[in-house]
Amino acid sequence: MKERELHQLLDLVRLGALPPDRAVARLKHLPFEDLGFAKVDHHRSLRQGYAEVIFGKGKTPGQVAEIVKSMLRHKASRQNILINPSVKSSAKFHALSGVITVERSREITGKGQIFVVSAGTSDIPVAEEALLTARMMGNRADPLYDVGVAGIHRLLEHREKLAAARVIICVAGMEGALPSVVGGLVGVPVIAVPTSTGYGASFGGVAALLGMLNSCASNVTVVNIDNGFGAACVASCINRL
Amino acid sequence: MKERELHQLLDLVRLGALPPDRAVARLKHLPFEDLGFAKVDHHRSLRQGYAEVIFGKGKTPGQVAEIVKSMLRHKASRQNILINPSVKSSAKFHALSGVITVERSREITGKGQIFVVSAGTSDIPVAEEALLTARMMGNRADPLYDVGVAGIHRLLEHREKLAAARVIICVAGMEGALPSVVGGLVGVPVIAVPTSTGYGASFGGVAALLGMLNSCASNVTVVNIDNGFGAACVASCINRL
Amino acid sequence: MKERELHQLLDLVRLGALPPDRAVARLKHLPFEDLGFAKVDHHRSLRQGYAEVIFGKGKTPGQVAEIVKSMLRHKASRQNILINPSVKSSAKFHALSGVITVERSREITGKGQIFVVSAGTSDIPVAEEALLTARMMGNRADPLYDVGVAGIHRLLEHREKLAAARVIICVAGMEGALPSVVGGLVGVPVIAVPTSTGYGASFGGVAALLGMLNSCASNVTVVNIDNGFGAACVASCINRL
Amino acid sequence: MKERELHQLLDLVRLGALPPDRAVARLKHLPFEDLGFAKVDHHRSLRQGYAEVIFGKGKTPGQVAEIVKSMLRHKASRQNILINPSVKSSAKFHALSGVITVERSREITGKGQIFVVSAGTSDIPVAEEALLTARMMGNRADPLYDVGVAGIHRLLEHREKLAAARVIICVAGMEGALPSVVGGLVGVPVIAVPTSTGYGASFGGVAALLGMLNSCASNVTVVNIDNGFGAACVASCINRL
Amino acid sequence: MKERELHQLLDLVRLGALPPDRAVARLKHLPFEDLGFAKVDHHRSLRQGYAEVIFGKGKTPGQVAEIVKSMLRHKASRQNILINPSVKSSAKFHALSGVITVERSREITGKGQIFVVSAGTSDIPVAEEALLTARMMGNRADPLYDVGVAGIHRLLEHREKLAAARVIICVAGMEGALPSVVGGLVGVPVIAVPTSTGYGASFGGVAALLGMLNSCASNVTVVNIDNGFGAACVASCINRL
Amino acid sequence: MKERELHQLLDLVRLGALPPDRAVARLKHLPFEDLGFAKVDHHRSLRQGYAEVIFGKGKTPGQVAEIVKSMLRHKASRQNILINPSVKSSAKFHALSGVITVERSREITGKGQIFVVSAGTSDIPVAEEALLTARMMGNRADPLYDVGVAGIHRLLEHREKLAAARVIICVAGMEGALPSVVGGLVGVPVIAVPTSTGYGASFGGVAALLGMLNSCASNVTVVNIDNGFGAACVASCINRL
Amino acid sequence: MKERELHQLLDLVRLGALPPDRAVARLKHLPFEDLGFAKVDHHRSLRQGYAEVIFGKGKTPGQVAEIVKSMLRHKASRQNILINPSVKSSAKFHALSGVITVERSREITGKGQIFVVSAGTSDIPVAEEALLTARMMGNRADPLYDVGVAGIHRLLEHREKLAAARVIICVAGMEGALPSVVGGLVGVPVIAVPTSTGYGASFGGVAALLGMLNSCASNVTVVNIDNGFGAACVASCINRL
Amino acid sequence: MKERELHQLLDLVRLGALPPDRAVARLKHLPFEDLGFAKVDHHRSLRQGYAEVIFGKGKTPGQVAEIVKSMLRHKASRQNILINPSVKSSAKFHALSGVITVERSREITGKGQIFVVSAGTSDIPVAEEALLTARMMGNRADPLYDVGVAGIHRLLEHREKLAAARVIICVAGMEGALPSVVGGLVGVPVIAVPTSTGYGASFGGVAALLGMLNSCASNVTVVNIDNGFGAACVASCINRL
Repeated sequence: MKERELHQLLDLVRLGALPPDRAVARLKHLPFEDLGFAKVDHHRSLRQGYAEVIFGKGKTPGQVAEIVKSMLRHKASRQNILINPSVKSSAKFHALSGVITVERSREITGKGQIFVVSAGTSDIPVAEEALLTARMMGNRADPLYDVGVAGIHRLLEHREKLAAARVIICVAGMEGALPSVVGGLVGVPVIAVPTSTGYGASFGGVAALLGMLNSCASNVTVVNIDNGFGAACVASCINRL
Repeated sequence: MKERELHQLLDLVRLGALPPDRAVARLKHLPFEDLGFAKVDHHRSLRQGYAEVIFGKGKTPGQVAEIVKSMLRHKASRQNILINPSVKSSAKFHALSGVITVERSREITGKGQIFVVSAGTSDIPVAEEALLTARMMGNRADPLYDVGVAGIHRLLEHREKLAAARVIICVAGMEGALPSVVGGLVGVPVIAVPTSTGYGASFGGVAALLGMLNSCASNVTVVNIDNGFGAACVASCINRL
Repeated sequence: MKERELHQLLDLVRLGALPPDRAVARLKHLPFEDLGFAKVDHHRSLRQGYAEVIFGKGKTPGQVAEIVKSMLRHKASRQNILINPSVKSSAKFHALSGVITVERSREITGKGQIFVVSAGTSDIPVAEEALLTARMMGNRADPLYDVGVAGIHRLLEHREKLAAARVIICVAGMEGALPSVVGGLVGVPVIAVPTSTGYGASFGGVAALLGMLNSCASNVTVVNIDNGFGAACVASCINRL
Repeated sequence: MKERELHQLLDLVRLGALPPDRAVARLKHLPFEDLGFAKVDHHRSLRQGYAEVIFGKGKTPGQVAEIVKSMLRHKASRQNILINPSVKSSAKFHALSGVITVERSREITGKGQIFVVSAGTSDIPVAEEALLTARMMGNRADPLYDVGVAGIHRLLEHREKLAAARVIICVAGMEGALPSVVGGLVGVPVIAVPTSTGYGASFGGVAALLGMLNSCASNVTVVNIDNGFGAACVASCINRL
Repeated sequence: MKERELHQLLDLVRLGALPPDRAVARLKHLPFEDLGFAKVDHHRSLRQGYAEVIFGKGKTPGQVAEIVKSMLRHKASRQNILINPSVKSSAKFHALSGVITVERSREITGKGQIFVVSAGTSDIPVAEEALLTARMMGNRADPLYDVGVAGIHRLLEHREKLAAARVIICVAGMEGALPSVVGGLVGVPVIAVPTSTGYGASFGGVAALLGMLNSCASNVTVVNIDNGFGAACVASCINRL
Repeated sequence: MKERELHQLLDLVRLGALPPDRAVARLKHLPFEDLGFAKVDHHRSLRQGYAEVIFGKGKTPGQVAEIVKSMLRHKASRQNILINPSVKSSAKFHALSGVITVERSREITGKGQIFVVSAGTSDIPVAEEALLTARMMGNRADPLYDVGVAGIHRLLEHREKLAAARVIICVAGMEGALPSVVGGLVGVPVIAVPTSTGYGASFGGVAALLGMLNSCASNVTVVNIDNGFGAACVASCINRL
Repeated sequence: MKERELHQLLDLVRLGALPPDRAVARLKHLPFEDLGFAKVDHHRSLRQGYAEVIFGKGKTPGQVAEIVKSMLRHKASRQNILINPSVKSSAKFHALSGVITVERSREITGKGQIFVVSAGTSDIPVAEEALLTARMMGNRADPLYDVGVAGIHRLLEHREKLAAARVIICVAGMEGALPSVVGGLVGVPVIAVPTSTGYGASFGGVAALLGMLNSCASNVTVVNIDNGFGAACVASCINRL
Repeated sequence: MKERELHQLLDLVRLGALPPDRAVARLKHLPFEDLGFAKVDHHRSLRQGYAEVIFGKGKTPGQVAEIVKSMLRHKASRQNILINPSVKSSAKFHALSGVITVERSREITGKGQIFVVSAGTSDIPVAEEALLTARMMGNRADPLYDVGVAGIHRLLEHREKLAAARVIICVAGMEGALPSVVGGLVGVPVIAVPTSTGYGASFGGVAALLGMLNSCASNVTVVNIDNGFGAACVASCINRL
């Protein structure tokens, strides 16, 4: 339920078209629906501007399916459409990042451009997760891959491109130095995503994480290791301001 | 040197009021000035929208003084004013956070309101550093302190206030849970600052840092432990978008 | 052997119905029975109020089987029943938590209500292990799942329910903030169970563990990561006081 | 404000002795009082059964004093007594643990006996903090010190004493093995407190903390390193059930 | 080559039965034989009193086979026997510990009794590795398993047995408290072996390792996690003194 | 593109054989070629003296193939040869280290001898990776394996050999002590490579890494765990000086 | 109380010279004496062959004094001597290691020679603590200092000396490689003591500790960081076998 | 003793000017001189090309003085000069890095130029230690300070300078990204020195250390945190090749 829909509902009340107690019931119902094992939070799209996302790891396929059905039912009832068999076919699996998307709108709601910059070919799965998420949330988002700091000229060639971004997502493993360099080149927020790319003393992304937390560029913030999704959420959240 | 000033300089060139080679000399000079031990980066205010900030730790007082003088000289020459003895008296020491400020403008350039929310009384030094920094960078910034999650009603009373913010800085030590709760209540970016408040298994802020990196609220990003300054930089950077 | 049975045995001695040396032999035998690789501690149910539980990991199936047989034999001789083939069919496998139970009594010995509260769908396996264990130990125990702190209203709706509990088990992964919030809402002991749910900087449950150890709510104690069983033991132990 | 007092207040309302709006104002005021830097939570004694405790570390002496004054004022107004000069003299400093207590009642509200068991002489500061806290919260609490596991006979001599406890607080540094042994001897909850006693690979209490989290006794829960206060809170909370 | 054999060789030289240069050649050859990928150290049995042991992990089966052949060839030539097909059948695989032994002598060279004490059933694989190794090195070695500290009476029943040992190997996972208790009961050296038994905060044996390093019993030393072999080597080395 | 080739190209320009704009186009093209997911850095062989190496982990086979093709195409065009089917058959897989090499020149460009010294048989895979890399980069490189510090005579026998080296690569797992001993024997740079060989408290190579970083020999530097490739790069880089 | 004294006491009983109940009282009294804050364990010298040692850190001077007085009183009463003023003057402070000794016997009870080998000058405080402790416990003990592995010839010169030892204590900081080399040279037990000597990645002795735990020499065991005392206890315990 | 001196000595023997046994005595004496607490290694300058350096931390001033005297005496006897009172005045204390130097020769023995590059003003103490050490060891060494990666243009301005170096020492704290960028710009070895500059998640230099170990530039090796001395030793060792 987008904010606009909520305003419509309250206008209906104001105009007498919806009895207050019906409105109350509906609003009270909204916060979450109890499925026993999961309380689907239909309100979140109102509060945070995007639909519930399901983090599959640790949930059974059955649980995921139940949650998806509940989420679509509500959207459906709001939009007077039926959940038809085409839903399944509308789901798309993205092999590189392992993301499944069900796109229900192509409206662009973000005000500017988001760039997803990545350091190495191995970081692409996480970068793709960020890119897809940003797009699904209504942003213009473009990739700029394999511009690691050990070949600094590759990055510098794209300086102008970067300067046009409103938010930058910077994905890097190993020493995680890319956000510091990128952060120094631009004046917009840089969301740094450490990846678990690497071996030995990279400790599954810890080296990159620490590098980013200690970034000497002051426009850099950090999300969890491999959390391309979270980076895109924040970037999208900023891009709607 | 603000972006506007750069445009003025180039306009002077276009209008013939400034010979190109004088302009080149001046621009070439700008990037940094070599003091031997430190290259003052006068360009950064152009690229990132705020003047160079000096991180005192690890620098000798003499080095700090040299850098400050260099920074003020340049600003001065740009503004046709002399560095007069009043500079010293214009510096203000903030005991709680240990910050020294030299305020040269009270212009508000941030578009919205920044809230600095903190979990406990002991987190206030870091929160104050963030608050001061945000204000020095031209933002309306207000505190909301001592609203830890173990007394959740204290936080919920301020729900409306929080809803009015454009960016929220969330400062917390110990388990660092505050950003998750705050993040769930609002739809704007939350910059989480772990503090070294605590003892034993807080490991100097590591517990809070990990808690924040694993936040289940998707609009939360994280900066280094006790880095109130960095959080305010990012918040300010977002608030200018 | 429950405490009551021990009193009966000693009464038999007092009444002359059991020759002292027979009693001694039996008591001396009780503490543990030597199976070579494992000393089954038949006394523990006396000391701690519940039967021996077998932690399967690291034991061969054969060893587990031997220990179970020894445990049932003793119980059996106490209750003058034979180990009949129905034992196998009385064993029940709980898929979600991987627990096998052999229920031999449905007596409720706990004085109050135990609530098992969990933060996310992914924490349910550990929560279920706690729930099952609490019930097997003779407690009224109920679940309250998926009430994470990023949607605080979900939890607050159940405030009254929580207030009715005598002990609360709080299961959470990621930042592990739930026990702090729950602990602040109630006046009874909260047993916090960190789970290995999460990725990256959750470090297999370490982030949640540290968060809980640093809880700002003072009625929270912590058990090992994923130790739903241990949490239920302590909760049961408290609930019998 | 004890629960009883709240009932009295509501009875006054029921009997017409207190106008409802006066009652509302008073209740509304209660949750916390805003001191700017700290929101004193007067409601906590209602919810959790004991008065606010001030954790001094990280607060300035002035802040501590303000908070204490606010806390005493409220208690005072509830009890129609003035804050007289004797308050200062009623404060008592306990050198061993560094605790300051202001005892306002000697009522015993805990149902049973709490034992504070400690492993070595060096653990006594933390053990004393636990002992004092437990007593201030209305419990009968007694010490049993220097009964480390490397001289197991010292502990076993006190077996009967331990068996009489309703809750046991177990304080130990170094390898932190004491709670496992004590836990195996009794059937009541054992709250384990790791201490930072030790050197080298004790890592400031981490070795003891890990030992306790991995305890093979299933009636053991753990609090933060050196957190004698927290252990006593939980023990007191259990002892009131 | 046992020390005795070396003396015999030198006696042969003294008696004129072996030309010095033949002796030199043989001695010079002894230190190690170059197989390209591995230098078999035939001298080690002289220096440290036991034959070379092959640590299989990280070596290919072919490499292991080459090393074994080289080792047996030398022993064989010393003992005027051929490497006959029975060698293969003389190798014995011990399923519990994964050890392969080729026993070539049953001589007891250790002066006293070695006990291998273990805390839980799950620690048995490591305990068995220690037991087998101690026996292969010519010691009388016996097991005492499943005597964990949470059921301290199990251990105390064997107090006399333990008192008869000359060296004790103590194998424990989880909190690793057993060596402290055992060390306090006896006056002989205790070699502590942490095991990776456990889960969560046991961190693959780190909790047990730290517990043992911080043991409050002063006759305890520690070897690497799961290193039953190493513990037996040291125990054997001590038992030959 | 070797430096020599660049000089040839510029000479062609000087001599008028190559129009400047053709030269510019070619040079501008050189830095990297955009494959979308990877920017192949053809300039690196110029800057650092060896061709791009592809780190396979985290790349799909398809991506690896694309990159190889791009790399060979450029070399090919420079050398007026076609990419013929024989390329595939010229690739060689080295089972021990998992390296694939395509050797295109056997020219020796390194000035001296590189020795790859390893501590145990289990370290050979990493040592072989270093050896192969050093050879592929045009160095005379020889192995000296299984000379661990617990049999110091094995190493000392090769003292003269080591003295002849210009650079030494020292590969060791477990306690990682070999580089300290080797470093003390020679006057040339020693590149230490920790390996993940070991178990328990070796923590996947961390023990060896820390040992090497703390080496008391002052001619030792360290690369990442298992990074035989990197060690050979540095060694080669030094050997060309 | 030495074992011999206990036998004498029991002989007195057998001979009728000591009434059994007097003996019982005395024996029952022996295990420990309750000082409130510390239970002095007079039995330990019986069980483990040496008098109680007081670890000063974390105890107040007053507590230390009380414990010393209690210990001397018992020894005194056993030996029919008074605690005279000379006790104080008999105490000796060793500046290098910070140890205070009160020598009451110069009897040599250890069977062989103990060597304390140390790697660097900075390790001497810990080495001295071990040396003094070994001597106080009745052993012939000699130092061999500054024989680090980066100058291996220094160590090899003393090879024969080392071969004469019955137990070796090996003290080393930084990479902690010395025990591996020493262990490979001898056939007797080597007790490794990591020291906190070093900086940066030595992490206060952790690097040395890990190095020693991963020693490739199989006659090496390890004690806690800087625990010279513990190493000497174990060495003494072995040397009495 | 430089290598040249050793050749001279052997030539004297060849020419009959020095009786062989006198030569033997002198050579045998050389390896180290026993001061009891420290074995001064006079041979090291032969083996590694530079005089013994004393690491002061953990040594008493008296020990340092003894070692210095021994070192100077030997040099003196070789050069037929007396240790005169001027030695003390020739010692120079460098405040920034805390280094004391006694310069005895200004001969340049290094073949090329060493650059010491540092990221921030706070890294200068470590950088200065490296610079001084490199110069004392006979190298031309120059600083290039405050060229951190967040202002990449500062570094790029010095690209040509860097290209002229034979070895580069790269000193950086915080995220430690500088060596990766520098390494990508040049074709010579880069010795990376992490510094303990920073706070919070820099963990005393660990973040920088990990960043450098994971550098994506393949000509980078690493030394211990703050080990400017070690970096200069290796750089000098390479520069003499």
